[in-house]
Amino acid sequence: MKDTREVTIYDIARQLHISPATVSRGLNNHPAVSKKTRQKILEVAQALGYRSNTFASNLRRQHTNTLGVIVPKLNSHFVSSVLAGIEKVANEAGYNLIISQSLESAQKEVANANTMFKSRVDGLIVSLAFDTQDLSHFNPFFKKGIPVIFFDRVEQSLPSSTHIIIDNEKAGYQATEHLIQQGCRHILHITGNLTRNVYADRLKGYQEALKAYGLPFHETDVIVSMLDEKSAWETGRQIANMHPLPDGLFVANDTFAAICMQALKEKGIRVPDDIAIVGFNDDLVSRVVEPPLTTVHYPGQEMGELVARHLINHLQGTVPLTHTHTIIIHSELIVRQSSLRNPQR
Amino acid sequence: MKDTREVTIYDIARQLHISPATVSRGLNNHPAVSKKTRQKILEVAQALGYRSNTFASNLRRQHTNTLGVIVPKLNSHFVSSVLAGIEKVANEAGYNLIISQSLESAQKEVANANTMFKSRVDGLIVSLAFDTQDLSHFNPFFKKGIPVIFFDRVEQSLPSSTHIIIDNEKAGYQATEHLIQQGCRHILHITGNLTRNVYADRLKGYQEALKAYGLPFHETDVIVSMLDEKSAWETGRQIANMHPLPDGLFVANDTFAAICMQALKEKGIRVPDDIAIVGFNDDLVSRVVEPPLTTVHYPGQEMGELVARHLINHLQGTVPLTHTHTIIIHSELIVRQSSLRNPQR
Repeated sequence: MKDTREVTIYDIARQLHISPATVSRGLNNHPAVSKKTRQKILEVAQALGYRSNTFASNLRRQHTNTLGVIVPKLNSHFVSSVLAGIEKVANEAGYNLIISQSLESAQKEVANANTMFKSRVDGLIVSLAFDTQDLSHFNPFFKKGIPVIFFDRVEQSLPSSTHIIIDNEKAGYQATEHLIQQGCRHILHITGNLTRNVYADRLKGYQEALKAYGLPFHETDVIVSMLDEKSAWETGRQIANMHPLPDGLFVANDTFAAICMQALKEKGIRVPDDIAIVGFNDDLVSRVVEPPLTTVHYPGQEMGELVARHLINHLQGTVPLTHTHTIIIHSELIVRQSSLRNPQR
Repeated sequence: MKDTREVTIYDIARQLHISPATVSRGLNNHPAVSKKTRQKILEVAQALGYRSNTFASNLRRQHTNTLGVIVPKLNSHFVSSVLAGIEKVANEAGYNLIISQSLESAQKEVANANTMFKSRVDGLIVSLAFDTQDLSHFNPFFKKGIPVIFFDRVEQSLPSSTHIIIDNEKAGYQATEHLIQQGCRHILHITGNLTRNVYADRLKGYQEALKAYGLPFHETDVIVSMLDEKSAWETGRQIANMHPLPDGLFVANDTFAAICMQALKEKGIRVPDDIAIVGFNDDLVSRVVEPPLTTVHYPGQEMGELVARHLINHLQGTVPLTHTHTIIIHSELIVRQSSLRNPQR
């Protein structure tokens, strides 16, 4: 038989032949209760399996020590790195995480935000879905003064929230410039939904670099994709059949780039000699493919730690969020063999 | 100015000039309140930003619609696939997830379990840390009748809990047998902490296969590793320097296998001709390395969905957990080029 009834201070009081009020004071270290009695109360509480009524006390204190996290999808190397960073800092600070995924759907993101609001999270951490445009589902949080921090996929038009991002435009510029400097003259850019800052900004960087080096920009050179594994194989095979072949690819994530590379190689196309490739994120996959992939180092774990620390500092009253609207963390182009066309130069 | 004060039924009552009791009945669809009045109450409640006091009502109902999940680390392809599956099912059934990571430390796992217990999760899902041996940190759950489901990394000696696993021994046997059939005669096995069922069982399968084919087992052929990226590069380079070289590797995860393969290739060792390699998990990385990696398909997302569905069915009273102690889900050897030494035969 399981004892599913909750142990209360009355049970402890009965066993010790003292008043429930004394038990309550003892559990809260009230000085009116002698050290010896407090010790006894704790022993009996532990023996009976008493747990303080966190709910009731949260209800009084109006906070839950819980942070909500909404990500586009859990099953992503970048997202799981960020989550690992958030969890580490939150756990150390005594916060629980409630985590949900929008599965790249604005509609599901709305439902997730509602659930988080009803669960009374103390703060919310969000990376937006592909197609989220209207952000009114976060209004209940803003109205209540519950802090919301956006990372990576953000909407900077939003005035009263904090964004933690990398400089995607600069990263896109550097990646494209590197391909141009390796002799590429016809560079495709493969990216995600351009509604999102991360993809829009990388595209901007790509365009700026072409312009700076006097290369024409063709809209048909930009391939917008769902960035899933299936699309990657299809896109790779599609590129292999192009006449003439492009000579450079700048791809918005490493997984997609690695699969494209594999698909191209299967068709006998040499990387980097025929097509040079640059990915994005510095995922593990970029280091184990052949040739190793040039990429933009994007520190997910560090970003997660920063996001959580920032939010918790705010909740603990040490740093007001309103002073910092956007935090840009460092990213860096890492050059490997997949793009080095003229190593001898 | 943010309005941080919580909106109550009294605010709604005041605005509508009706009693708080009527508001409360109206919000609960009590038939004593006319449809028209109910409608008005809902409109004002929405306009003021009222949220029903989930906490207070959870306190009464003694459940929280929250599931706790403790995993060894969030930053893993397999774990993030499982989490994606758990979240999908939980979210659809109206459950929140509280997620934490033990970072492969039994000590942190104990702290995580305590936090989950205090947060009054309705059920707990656990994959054990490398070095967890004593399981008494789950006793408070068992004592209270809170269901605990273990997946992947389990401790089957535990009588009163459910385990969802694959047949690791069989998978280990098949992987090793395949290498033997490809002509390998000196096969190393690289694995994680042998306290854990997943690694112990795969080793058993490896030993069984050697025995079945009359090959000797040497303890020195088993390399136990933390299975992190750094160890993988080191182990790969160490194997490259062995005299004589082994001719087969059976590695407990794909990431580790992919890095080993890369490290061997950098030393001029040919895969599969000099050393044939089999990994484990069927991670994306196994499909993009050169040559593609033979591996054991291990359906993370499906496992996560099954775990969550099983736990929620139990919580909703449709399936008692006690009837099913261990569920074994299907896994399968997927043969690719990294181990095909005699494709012409």
